[in-house]
Amino acid sequence: MAAHFLFLALASSHAIASDPNQLQDFCVADLNSDVFANGFVCKDSKQAKAEDFFFSGLDKAGDTGNKVGSNVTLITVDQIPGLNTLGITLARLDFAPYGLIPPHTHPRATEILTVLEGTLYVGFVTSNPNNQLFIKVLHKGDVFVFPQGLIHFQFNHGKTNAVAISGLSSQNPGVILIPNAVFGTKPPISDDILAKAFQLDKKTIDWLQAQF
Amino acid sequence: MAAHFLFLALASSHAIASDPNQLQDFCVADLNSDVFANGFVCKDSKQAKAEDFFFSGLDKAGDTGNKVGSNVTLITVDQIPGLNTLGITLARLDFAPYGLIPPHTHPRATEILTVLEGTLYVGFVTSNPNNQLFIKVLHKGDVFVFPQGLIHFQFNHGKTNAVAISGLSSQNPGVILIPNAVFGTKPPISDDILAKAFQLDKKTIDWLQAQF
Amino acid sequence: MAAHFLFLALASSHAIASDPNQLQDFCVADLNSDVFANGFVCKDSKQAKAEDFFFSGLDKAGDTGNKVGSNVTLITVDQIPGLNTLGITLARLDFAPYGLIPPHTHPRATEILTVLEGTLYVGFVTSNPNNQLFIKVLHKGDVFVFPQGLIHFQFNHGKTNAVAISGLSSQNPGVILIPNAVFGTKPPISDDILAKAFQLDKKTIDWLQAQF
Amino acid sequence: MAAHFLFLALASSHAIASDPNQLQDFCVADLNSDVFANGFVCKDSKQAKAEDFFFSGLDKAGDTGNKVGSNVTLITVDQIPGLNTLGITLARLDFAPYGLIPPHTHPRATEILTVLEGTLYVGFVTSNPNNQLFIKVLHKGDVFVFPQGLIHFQFNHGKTNAVAISGLSSQNPGVILIPNAVFGTKPPISDDILAKAFQLDKKTIDWLQAQF
Amino acid sequence: MAAHFLFLALASSHAIASDPNQLQDFCVADLNSDVFANGFVCKDSKQAKAEDFFFSGLDKAGDTGNKVGSNVTLITVDQIPGLNTLGITLARLDFAPYGLIPPHTHPRATEILTVLEGTLYVGFVTSNPNNQLFIKVLHKGDVFVFPQGLIHFQFNHGKTNAVAISGLSSQNPGVILIPNAVFGTKPPISDDILAKAFQLDKKTIDWLQAQF
Amino acid sequence: MAAHFLFLALASSHAIASDPNQLQDFCVADLNSDVFANGFVCKDSKQAKAEDFFFSGLDKAGDTGNKVGSNVTLITVDQIPGLNTLGITLARLDFAPYGLIPPHTHPRATEILTVLEGTLYVGFVTSNPNNQLFIKVLHKGDVFVFPQGLIHFQFNHGKTNAVAISGLSSQNPGVILIPNAVFGTKPPISDDILAKAFQLDKKTIDWLQAQF
Repeated sequence: MAAHFLFLALASSHAIASDPNQLQDFCVADLNSDVFANGFVCKDSKQAKAEDFFFSGLDKAGDTGNKVGSNVTLITVDQIPGLNTLGITLARLDFAPYGLIPPHTHPRATEILTVLEGTLYVGFVTSNPNNQLFIKVLHKGDVFVFPQGLIHFQFNHGKTNAVAISGLSSQNPGVILIPNAVFGTKPPISDDILAKAFQLDKKTIDWLQAQF
Repeated sequence: MAAHFLFLALASSHAIASDPNQLQDFCVADLNSDVFANGFVCKDSKQAKAEDFFFSGLDKAGDTGNKVGSNVTLITVDQIPGLNTLGITLARLDFAPYGLIPPHTHPRATEILTVLEGTLYVGFVTSNPNNQLFIKVLHKGDVFVFPQGLIHFQFNHGKTNAVAISGLSSQNPGVILIPNAVFGTKPPISDDILAKAFQLDKKTIDWLQAQF
Repeated sequence: MAAHFLFLALASSHAIASDPNQLQDFCVADLNSDVFANGFVCKDSKQAKAEDFFFSGLDKAGDTGNKVGSNVTLITVDQIPGLNTLGITLARLDFAPYGLIPPHTHPRATEILTVLEGTLYVGFVTSNPNNQLFIKVLHKGDVFVFPQGLIHFQFNHGKTNAVAISGLSSQNPGVILIPNAVFGTKPPISDDILAKAFQLDKKTIDWLQAQF
Repeated sequence: MAAHFLFLALASSHAIASDPNQLQDFCVADLNSDVFANGFVCKDSKQAKAEDFFFSGLDKAGDTGNKVGSNVTLITVDQIPGLNTLGITLARLDFAPYGLIPPHTHPRATEILTVLEGTLYVGFVTSNPNNQLFIKVLHKGDVFVFPQGLIHFQFNHGKTNAVAISGLSSQNPGVILIPNAVFGTKPPISDDILAKAFQLDKKTIDWLQAQF
Repeated sequence: MAAHFLFLALASSHAIASDPNQLQDFCVADLNSDVFANGFVCKDSKQAKAEDFFFSGLDKAGDTGNKVGSNVTLITVDQIPGLNTLGITLARLDFAPYGLIPPHTHPRATEILTVLEGTLYVGFVTSNPNNQLFIKVLHKGDVFVFPQGLIHFQFNHGKTNAVAISGLSSQNPGVILIPNAVFGTKPPISDDILAKAFQLDKKTIDWLQAQF
Repeated sequence: MAAHFLFLALASSHAIASDPNQLQDFCVADLNSDVFANGFVCKDSKQAKAEDFFFSGLDKAGDTGNKVGSNVTLITVDQIPGLNTLGITLARLDFAPYGLIPPHTHPRATEILTVLEGTLYVGFVTSNPNNQLFIKVLHKGDVFVFPQGLIHFQFNHGKTNAVAISGLSSQNPGVILIPNAVFGTKPPISDDILAKAFQLDKKTIDWLQAQF
């Protein structure tokens, strides 16, 4: 449930480095339109106001009372309709001691992160065949980049809370949390397939699927 | 080893739907240049010849004698230097009975597949929070689309071999095989992190890491 | 008529290597909307289902009973609404003995082709001033690339049927069959212009225009 | 020869509406580098000077003493190295009385034209299956648009010279003159193929090929 | 007022070198739709006609009876709905003797200009920290490029009128006239801020704000 | 001098919302290569290491001891070569009491900002003809968006220091500080032009040019 909240928060996340270019100063998303487009259709620009480009509350810590002890607060086109067509978003990451943002990918964005408090052990993995792991311990003021589409994680291996701010290169990069997207789908992926993929017996797979 | 071959084959795979546009008729990759660029630098266009746009052998079945019973043969810019800047590639997929291409993503491409022989059970998973699984059984002549960056799999649940051809929307979309990119990295991801991410005890994680 | 069918089939064809990037997991085309956009507006994503990403029948040979003895079956956003925003499509090419797909261009896509049966004599022409012809004879399992926007053709110079599968780098690359787009327009291009362009007398032009 | 000059002039033409974006203020083409890229590699920006963005002579009429009585003078990245990465070019079109720019396409650009002197009869053709011809007579001060990749022509059907200026949306859109790219290739396209494509006897095809 | 007219003319200006690619032959803007998008939604393509790609009157001199003695007539998607999705536009620039187009930027386009009459003294400024000024005197037939987003100006330092034609690389590049966008905003920018930014006393700032 | 430092810091700034897409997992900039490209050529990917994606020190306040009382520390491809091709960057903004980042544009990026400490009075101006000013007072935790290419400013109108973090949508968006780019160019813009543009006498212009 708390975990569910984490994923909900993550869900309407990020922004892609190559969103299509804007064709006017701005195109404030009309979140109430019943016309759906690639991104959003816009409000009449005459109706745009400063509040369309504004959000309040990124100083509030997210709730880390979940299985993984982390939380992501995303400020995307869903929170700031003025971001529509502008190709970027911000996120706040909160970690309890030993909190983890599990291995995940952003299908439509690169992430650049800076640590505001605490220390983080972070890494990303190159694509096959190398599966090379790039890891780094980050302290306050350190910055690290996670290239678009690669699996990465952030882990607070310290005894205190950690906080980070990330920029992501799309108005909606999406996020795929590997454990949930593999073991927590609706409907579940057949345990024949997961057993073969992970070289595990079906019992372990069934147990895993029960967790997510 | 056989499995290794599978991943090697997968490695220099696919193509992205939004590779940057070409600025000349073609830019044949100079695979021997010591200048590295986004994509490849080109041979002098005066040296281009029909062979630069040609590959032979996609009618040959790939070796499915590996743990997962599948193989992917990719015809990318590494095989056809003329593909450089052109944003597409082809792949041949071979499956032994019950062969599986494990859950994977292409960070830089959408895939469109058609079945030439046999039947495949395929699916993809939407990004969080929904983790919705879209599944379909495909027979000879059926076509299915796997949107860019989403986790998907192809499974031969029939008693006979299966063969498919895919188009992918980049000269190098990349592939991330989830089990390998999580449990088979070099160096390994700390088992603290994977145990927490997958809610498994470290023993199981260590065992999994030994498999990949 | 049969020829007309060929061109109809070709018409709603292919996909461009640089379609704008998607801003969500997918944007299934709402083919019934009366709002027209660059590409298509989307169905509510909550209504998306596996069938939106599916097509059946690419194993069926197209009707080659037309003047040029060829047929193209295209699986585009019109057949698979889920392809909208994803920048790729597949096509099946059928050739009777000596069947020809006449010189044509795809204004918005590169094509990569592989031969499933028979042999094809294919070529493309560079842009002016060189007008250099790149030609190749393709056998089963051979692959060839036709760069975006260049004039190309595929000819079955064997005594048996030929079949090929192509990937194209747009959800709608378009196709321009040179003979039809020059001599078969509605209304016709003035024969003064065509006579001067092709250095032919008006009689021959008028005769040609009567053919298409 | 004169005609050859026309095509040479056309050859290093135009600019594409979606050239990749620049990543610095400018990237002046280093036309002497032996490193070839998508577009051009750049001079050291410290060496850039105003002359790199300058060309002189577009007020000079082009030589229309050729078979088609027209000429195109293009100011592209080859003439203005500063245009590299900037996605646009200009062209001057000159027409003798009854001069014609034959049916052609720009594989990588849209063209917008304005008439400075005389009158032009212009048109473009939609892609198959419609082959719809859009035509317009243009007088001094009129403007007309030719969408990217579509076949179009410009004909001076008046008794006086005509002059036009065009903008094109790439640093190198390319041009494909249909008659030359079909009947004037090196080596020639087999007359079997052209006879079948154009429904003409081989004699006429051979005669046509002799013209270009 | 006259000046106001100048800016109005400039307002619905230009075109960007990287407008998103088109996904069909054309997408004629439906300027009357109440659905707003990135760019414009399209008319049903069956309703498209040659007039949608046409404009008349670029031979008419613009009114230079304003404070700066210049005028810009832009032929954009607002004047030619067929330009929608095509990434380019044309402009006519008129200058009275000593007429000036004040320092301005096009946030979404590169400009390429050619002089038809008179002489112009033009320049652009690189981004910080260099603020390097590139200047050139242009005579009839000269061409000059102003890279996307950089501040530039065009000044007629001759005793006679001057006329130029520009191509710009977007269907709507926008224009930002520096003096107006700094001193003429509604509401005004606080004179505290402008005094500090320009190192001027508030009186001078207030006087400046009264001018625009 | 201090001011010079501010601009130097600003100079190698930001990232554009539509940098061209990457064609491999990453392309670490080879900052020592003598081959210049759009962006940077890459190091051999085999040589890439975690440090290429890392920067340390964003927790350090920038020096605000300059005329405008502000400083911008940018973490771009120049500081993190791994950012090359990835389309995003981060910046830290420091403000002394009443410190100002003067009106400026980013020609190649949208900016999204969040306040870490203090309060900021911020605004942006739409393009002509409206010159509409959008303003907002931001407190700790507030977020605001500045659309690509529009003039904007950030002012600390409180008695305490202020700190903000921004994401920008390019690896090198560039920055144009209006006062410096107008009055501080090398060589200076002619005072005839600036006097006419700003409706000021030449004495004031000369005085202004002496300031920058």
